Amino acid sequence: MSSNDDRPGSPRQQPLQADKQDRRSFLRSSVSAGVSVAAGSLVSGPVLASADNPVPINWDRSVDIVVVGGGAAGGSAAIKAHELGSEVLVLEKAPIFGGTAAKSVGGIWAPNNKYMQAAGLTDNRDDALKFMVRLSHPQDFNPDAEFYGAPEAVYLQLGTFYDTVNVALDELESFGALQTMPLNIGGMMMPDYFSHLAENKAPNGRAIVPQKPNGSLGNGAELMRQLKAAVDKRRIPVLTRHRADDLVLDDSGRVIGIVAIKRDGTRIKIEARKGVIFGSGGFTHNKQLQLDFLKGPIFGGCAVPTCEGDFIPIATRAGAQLGNMSNAWWAQLPLELALENPSVPTGIWCSPGDSMVQVNRFGKRFFDEKFVYNERTQVQFQWDPVSGSYPNLLSFLIYDQRTADEFANYAPLPPKGSDAAHVIKADTLEALEQQLVEKLRTIESRTAKFTLDDDFLASLKATVKRFNGFAESGVDEDFNRGGQPIDQFFHFFGPNQPTHNYPNMTLHPIATSGPYYAVILAAGTLDTKGGPKINEHAQVIDTRGQPIPGLYGAGNCIASMSGPAYWAGGATLGPALTFGNIAATHALTAATVS
Amino acid sequence: MSSNDDRPGSPRQQPLQADKQDRRSFLRSSVSAGVSVAAGSLVSGPVLASADNPVPINWDRSVDIVVVGGGAAGGSAAIKAHELGSEVLVLEKAPIFGGTAAKSVGGIWAPNNKYMQAAGLTDNRDDALKFMVRLSHPQDFNPDAEFYGAPEAVYLQLGTFYDTVNVALDELESFGALQTMPLNIGGMMMPDYFSHLAENKAPNGRAIVPQKPNGSLGNGAELMRQLKAAVDKRRIPVLTRHRADDLVLDDSGRVIGIVAIKRDGTRIKIEARKGVIFGSGGFTHNKQLQLDFLKGPIFGGCAVPTCEGDFIPIATRAGAQLGNMSNAWWAQLPLELALENPSVPTGIWCSPGDSMVQVNRFGKRFFDEKFVYNERTQVQFQWDPVSGSYPNLLSFLIYDQRTADEFANYAPLPPKGSDAAHVIKADTLEALEQQLVEKLRTIESRTAKFTLDDDFLASLKATVKRFNGFAESGVDEDFNRGGQPIDQFFHFFGPNQPTHNYPNMTLHPIATSGPYYAVILAAGTLDTKGGPKINEHAQVIDTRGQPIPGLYGAGNCIASMSGPAYWAGGATLGPALTFGNIAATHALTAATVS
Repeated sequence: MSSNDDRPGSPRQQPLQADKQDRRSFLRSSVSAGVSVAAGSLVSGPVLASADNPVPINWDRSVDIVVVGGGAAGGSAAIKAHELGSEVLVLEKAPIFGGTAAKSVGGIWAPNNKYMQAAGLTDNRDDALKFMVRLSHPQDFNPDAEFYGAPEAVYLQLGTFYDTVNVALDELESFGALQTMPLNIGGMMMPDYFSHLAENKAPNGRAIVPQKPNGSLGNGAELMRQLKAAVDKRRIPVLTRHRADDLVLDDSGRVIGIVAIKRDGTRIKIEARKGVIFGSGGFTHNKQLQLDFLKGPIFGGCAVPTCEGDFIPIATRAGAQLGNMSNAWWAQLPLELALENPSVPTGIWCSPGDSMVQVNRFGKRFFDEKFVYNERTQVQFQWDPVSGSYPNLLSFLIYDQRTADEFANYAPLPPKGSDAAHVIKADTLEALEQQLVEKLRTIESRTAKFTLDDDFLASLKATVKRFNGFAESGVDEDFNRGGQPIDQFFHFFGPNQPTHNYPNMTLHPIATSGPYYAVILAAGTLDTKGGPKINEHAQVIDTRGQPIPGLYGAGNCIASMSGPAYWAGGATLGPALTFGNIAATHALTAATVS
Repeated sequence: MSSNDDRPGSPRQQPLQADKQDRRSFLRSSVSAGVSVAAGSLVSGPVLASADNPVPINWDRSVDIVVVGGGAAGGSAAIKAHELGSEVLVLEKAPIFGGTAAKSVGGIWAPNNKYMQAAGLTDNRDDALKFMVRLSHPQDFNPDAEFYGAPEAVYLQLGTFYDTVNVALDELESFGALQTMPLNIGGMMMPDYFSHLAENKAPNGRAIVPQKPNGSLGNGAELMRQLKAAVDKRRIPVLTRHRADDLVLDDSGRVIGIVAIKRDGTRIKIEARKGVIFGSGGFTHNKQLQLDFLKGPIFGGCAVPTCEGDFIPIATRAGAQLGNMSNAWWAQLPLELALENPSVPTGIWCSPGDSMVQVNRFGKRFFDEKFVYNERTQVQFQWDPVSGSYPNLLSFLIYDQRTADEFANYAPLPPKGSDAAHVIKADTLEALEQQLVEKLRTIESRTAKFTLDDDFLASLKATVKRFNGFAESGVDEDFNRGGQPIDQFFHFFGPNQPTHNYPNMTLHPIATSGPYYAVILAAGTLDTKGGPKINEHAQVIDTRGQPIPGLYGAGNCIASMSGPAYWAGGATLGPALTFGNIAATHALTAATVS
């Protein structure tokens, strides 16, 4: 038998050298039991064992359900699995439970939720599904077509989500695991990101958030605090600093366990008698996967650093089919913060300010600065054919002292009166341009060469002049800034709610004298949303379209049914919590299992 | 053992039902030999056998090299493998040898080729690589960085291509398999698609074409005629109507054979003693893979109908790593032809005409109509954030009688004086708009609902007026049409080379009176360019970055090293022919094999 261990090691394999002997012993013990274990698969494929003739695998632990990833999806799955009477274990790669969810705003999108019902708002199933398909399959959407033009499998998942999200949330509440409340600010129920579309029949009220013990609005940290408390109360073990490395399959193709690697390189084998549920992250922090799959170049994301797409090679080795790989939950990021640490503290939810514009390297605006981060970022991927370049790849947030003061502490603006390394300040637009040029020069050793167009300054001045005219009239004739309900909501979402006497609150003339400020923004993500595909039971499917028995997924690690769309705030966490619940339910109760 | 055969069949499995008994016998025979074969893997994974204890697989045939796909990559691989003294067999899914290459223009991009050298043109390695990285990694390109900012693996492949393409072509010539000549038209050596970039130090002469026996320029049909003749002369068997279905691996992970399915559903097992080389097509004609991976929506492509991405699930089951999945060799297509048959006869290489524009549903131009198809098409993917839609997804080619006559028979224009179902004709722009509206209404049962903006007509009139001004002045102030060498080359690439007295040959005023014409264009491909990743030896690599022994790939079925770029005409066939050659060489001569 030729040994794959003799192949030159990949960088990723280096940390595992110390463990080789262990793997060989493992392999030998399997073989000695008269069961063939594909040697190749120990290096490049999943580990095979036999269902009929169980390999005497020296499991380090044995539980019913292994949950990978202690975020929203994993937390939901673990709690539900425990409530169904099973023994659960959570593997978490990071030193702490919480995942990217703990960094989020904490919105949970739940169509037809109980708070809407209490407020007398209707949100019927067909309309909700039609709205979701409209945005998730914009090129195929047809209200008269079967499944509104979406693939049947997507339509089934969307319907399951609508039918189950409130059940899952009610269950978390009944388990004492999560208290929620509607996301109302200033008496306004949060609008969907596309509340302005004709297809949206329930434009407000679908977003809910965790409720803090004192009754106030909670964020993602509060969500994960509550879920963690529920996990701890149930004494569900959470093994932190444990990275999932490979699945163990029996020879019927069923997933029966998982191999994880501890921080010191030692490897443990955990039997999962009822199933393995991945609730891990996307691949924001894996440069190679970015290049291989995403539709545009990114510089980082809000995802916690552990979001390196581990599930993709692991599931591929188990024969999983990948989907929705070109899309992400997109966000703009301050370039310099991303270069320092690609796992940035926060994305630019909204461009803070009223006396503010974003311009590209030609000094021109290219979108409604107040609109949704997911959509704005995709405009940064716009391709200029003849120059063979992305003209909007870097965006320059330009504002004046008014915005610096009034919108202080609304990311990426620092607290009032304070400086930040990523903020450029100058007395004139001329000096601002000069500083931008110098700044780009200093960072080019770590990036491509980025430059401003020769006409940047003249064009910026013309842009400011035109923008100031819009501020006077109240109408942004180029991009209709402030024209959508979500623009208004985001505008006032910061720490302060400054007003003025111009007709459109999102538009205020930029001062005719300095100081002026600039922040360089790059494309990034909250996290990605492609990965192994699941069905409506949260089962991962293989390349023939069949479920891989015992393998489940939910959250950012799997192919999101949302396609390119970000329907509304909480469109990430709503499905994550829901399909985490569904995965546990199916693994433990479906008749087809066992 | 739970039987995977009891799972509900996927649509793809239906045709194989008749063959189940055969598969079961196959499985039983393997197991009876005392070697475990994962039952699941017969349905959802590759077939495993043992190297130490060879399974008595009842091979239907046994050869040294199996080549999958009788196109340019496969033809090159098969001929080279034969020349190296091996026994070769070609599997071709279609009824005929030729693949998409046989439909192509036949350009072969070969930097530093002998015709350039003979003409005294220099094309040095570093500059050529710099140019390729500039376009293939536009977001990371930095002339001062290591590998110019590209990943090392890509840089290695690019270098190997530069070093080997002319060797491979010389070999084909010395084998009597392919005669070439430079692509000169009217004394002009063909320019690269980005000959106008500062990074292009050898802007002309890199494209060569097959030479017909009479000494004239040959196209893709001539290329494949010559390769087929060479294959036949060597008596290399080509099994047409044989679809590759799965690889056979031994338990070291080495590919030792392949399972193919004949048109009648019977399955044959072919041993490949030295390797399997995939030279099959992309996934243009697989709607699900389009949605799962491409960065924008397409309606079809020039790829032959067999290009359904078969290698992707097959290679995934063998543990391959996928790459470059969001990109394709993009092309515009006539929407109605694509709806009739997604495998369209030809893409819109250039927009034919001088008194012609392309406009979007808002009646506005959105690119240089004469520029490269690959780049134009990507502008159709531009995303409008607030409306949540692709404003350019359909494009409307608008022209007058002059263009209809003078550019007749330059796709998509029909021969002079003849009609075509995909061409709308009307006496006025008003009537043209009305007919477009009706046409879109008739096709909406098969597509999304596509509409023209309410202001389409007024905007189109303004567009024509502005365009006519550009024709008078000779300068397209919006998109610099005709400003690039490739614009001029494409403009005169049709059957006729009409001239006029306006200053820019690509711009002629659109007539102030009818008739007017319109063709609806949609986004599509020549074929896709993502798939399993290869290394510089054309070996397919696994999810750990290691080569899968015995498995090779070249052409549109693998992850192109070109990323999003289409460097020049022949950037498809050049690497396909080259890496087909490299694959055969490595499989048969590399010391690490055996």
